[in-house]
Parts: sequence; C-alpha cells; structure tokens
Amino acid sequence: MHVLTVCYGHPADPAAFDAYYTSTHVPLAEKIPELTSFTYRHCDSLDASPPPYYLLAELAFASGEALNVGLSSPEGQAAAGDVPNFATGGVTMFVARD
Amino acid sequence: MHVLTVCYGHPADPAAFDAYYTSTHVPLAEKIPELTSFTYRHCDSLDASPPPYYLLAELAFASGEALNVGLSSPEGQAAAGDVPNFATGGVTMFVARD
Repeated sequence: MHVLTVCYGHPADPAAFDAYYTSTHVPLAEKIPELTSFTYRHCDSLDASPPPYYLLAELAFASGEALNVGLSSPEGQAAAGDVPNFATGGVTMFVARD
Repeated sequence: MHVLTVCYGHPADPAAFDAYYTSTHVPLAEKIPELTSFTYRHCDSLDASPPPYYLLAELAFASGEALNVGLSSPEGQAAAGDVPNFATGGVTMFVARD
C-alpha cells in the first residue's frame, strides 16, 4: 500500500475550511483514478496543546505505480490544483508505504 | 474511529531504528488493550526533498474512550515508555478522529 498522506495546518477559518473541503474538495479527490480508499479525520492533541495539524487525509493506492497514475491523471491534477483554494493553514504531503 | 498517529523524525541510525522498532516496539504496541488495528509505514516525499518524517504509525481505537483505556493501561504505558529508547529523531503524536 502507498498512502498519500496530506496534513493540513490550522486554517484561518475552520468552518469555511470544513464547508469547502466536504462540498468541493472531497468530491474532486474521490474521482482520482486507482484510489482504493480515502479517509479524512480532524486532529486532536493528547494534551492541552494545539495539535500539529488541523485535518489529516489519507489517499491509498495499491502500489507506487498506481499512486503515480492517480496523481498525474487529470483528476489528480484537478484535486491537487484545488488545494490552494482552501488550505489557508498550509499543507504537508508525503507518501507512507509498506 | 480514533487513530493515535505517531510521526517519527529521521533517526540517527535508520537500520538500528528499524531493527529495534520491529523486534521490540511493535510487540509492545500490539499488546495495548482496545487496539483495533496497528499499521506502520516508512515515508517518502513526492519530490527530491527529504520527507518530513521517517516512519508513520497508526494505532486505531473504536472511540476516544477506548483510546484512553488503551493508552492509560500498563501495556499502553509500557509502549509509550519505550519510545525514548529508539526515537532518536524525535516524535510527534496526535489523535485523528472521525
């Protein structure tokens, strides 16, 4: 499994982020070819400090090749191109692989 | 789902980290009560830069209550107490929740 892991920093307006994310970005991400699962979760810290991220999204692909096909597709490019439209707290992406 | 997400920074000696992690830390983590799944994956970046973390571990629990039971148990405390024994690159932890 190769999991594109997308860590969103705390947005300027969390309610606006959530509304845009669920109504616009999630449908774009779900169209990416070769995607085997897509999850997103809000983050909490284990203590009273703020968590390092606001939301964590995980896009799973069966292999590195499948991930490359998905991300380089028009649908993958559309989803990636949408990120600056709402990620006001910045974003950190990496691939977690078995 | 409440997922304890453990992001390990790049260790001083990756081979030693991997050996200790798989032989000693994983068996400790797998003993944590209420744990419903445990995965760990090495990280790659999407470009030529180093990824922000070396390894990402995810410990899933059915609820926040189950996570608290697991982490506060003797087995949870043993696993947490083992982290400084090998996490030479530091560690960032948070909870990702539905």
